[in-house]
Amino acid sequence: MRIFGIDPGSRRTGYGCIDTDGSRCRLVVCGAVTVSTRIPFSERLAGIYDELVSLLATHRPECVAIEDVFFARNAKSSLRLGHARGVAMLAASKAGLTVSEYAPTEIKLAVVGYGRAEKQQVQQMVALLLRLDTPPTPHDASDALAIALCHAHTAAGPAATRPAVHQTAVRSWRQYRPGSGS
Amino acid sequence: MRIFGIDPGSRRTGYGCIDTDGSRCRLVVCGAVTVSTRIPFSERLAGIYDELVSLLATHRPECVAIEDVFFARNAKSSLRLGHARGVAMLAASKAGLTVSEYAPTEIKLAVVGYGRAEKQQVQQMVALLLRLDTPPTPHDASDALAIALCHAHTAAGPAATRPAVHQTAVRSWRQYRPGSGS
Repeated sequence: MRIFGIDPGSRRTGYGCIDTDGSRCRLVVCGAVTVSTRIPFSERLAGIYDELVSLLATHRPECVAIEDVFFARNAKSSLRLGHARGVAMLAASKAGLTVSEYAPTEIKLAVVGYGRAEKQQVQQMVALLLRLDTPPTPHDASDALAIALCHAHTAAGPAATRPAVHQTAVRSWRQYRPGSGS
Repeated sequence: MRIFGIDPGSRRTGYGCIDTDGSRCRLVVCGAVTVSTRIPFSERLAGIYDELVSLLATHRPECVAIEDVFFARNAKSSLRLGHARGVAMLAASKAGLTVSEYAPTEIKLAVVGYGRAEKQQVQQMVALLLRLDTPPTPHDASDALAIALCHAHTAAGPAATRPAVHQTAVRSWRQYRPGSGS
């Protein structure tokens, strides 16, 4: 299964694409879409959208995983983040892909095994799980890969390599599948 | 000048299109894009986006005006609103249109003459300014027309019929024009 993880942001949107056979994962591509803050905000959103549409068409994942953020620092930050997240979800929807959302604690739990893990620990585990010498940079790319890995562990079912983590993470995952009415 | 106002929401997005000659305004079309809450959220965003793209192509406005919301009820509401607002701004950007943003107080000030006006007063003034018997329904359509009227009054310059209001409102308006670097 090919999974495309997205870590949206209004300045930089991380992405990470992995292949998984249900037990091991392999890096396909990762990076970040950086948009200039000197262009109008609507143009920035178009930049993020166009790049994600292009990446999804190039790498043809079977599903998209995205972080489910309930509480950003404040309402204004939430609103800005929501814009980027909205166009990212639209890009996935336009590519006919299901979007799975995971809370930050679920991602940390699935990748590190501890829901309150530090960012750096998550990045180290991303490198370890994908057999990379160092965590991919920028950190938004690592974060996006962590989201994809979380989906790989969660969607892989009981055969996953980290069953205890899987059982905890799957309880609250929410999958949006077109036509499922969920 | 033809102005397309958008009042975004994740359940219902109001829109209102007006023509203005700098002093009088005329209703072109208004309504609301309602998306079922029973379909996945990414599909809902696609529904809003597709409908706005279609409306902008049909009515060919020269600019888009949208409410600038800094503080929704809470961070979660802000995030949801941000998604809808993001795809609305993307639709405008894809149509090559500038997006002007107005704070709720600016809209009330420009339409009613009082920044803390009640919602109902705004709707009554929308009907009055557009020479309609009653405020258009649903209220999201009226709200979108208020945003378009605010832009008409603000962008019309000193010749506008409500100069005092214009002078106050123009102080803090922010126009996003492609390539202006603002």
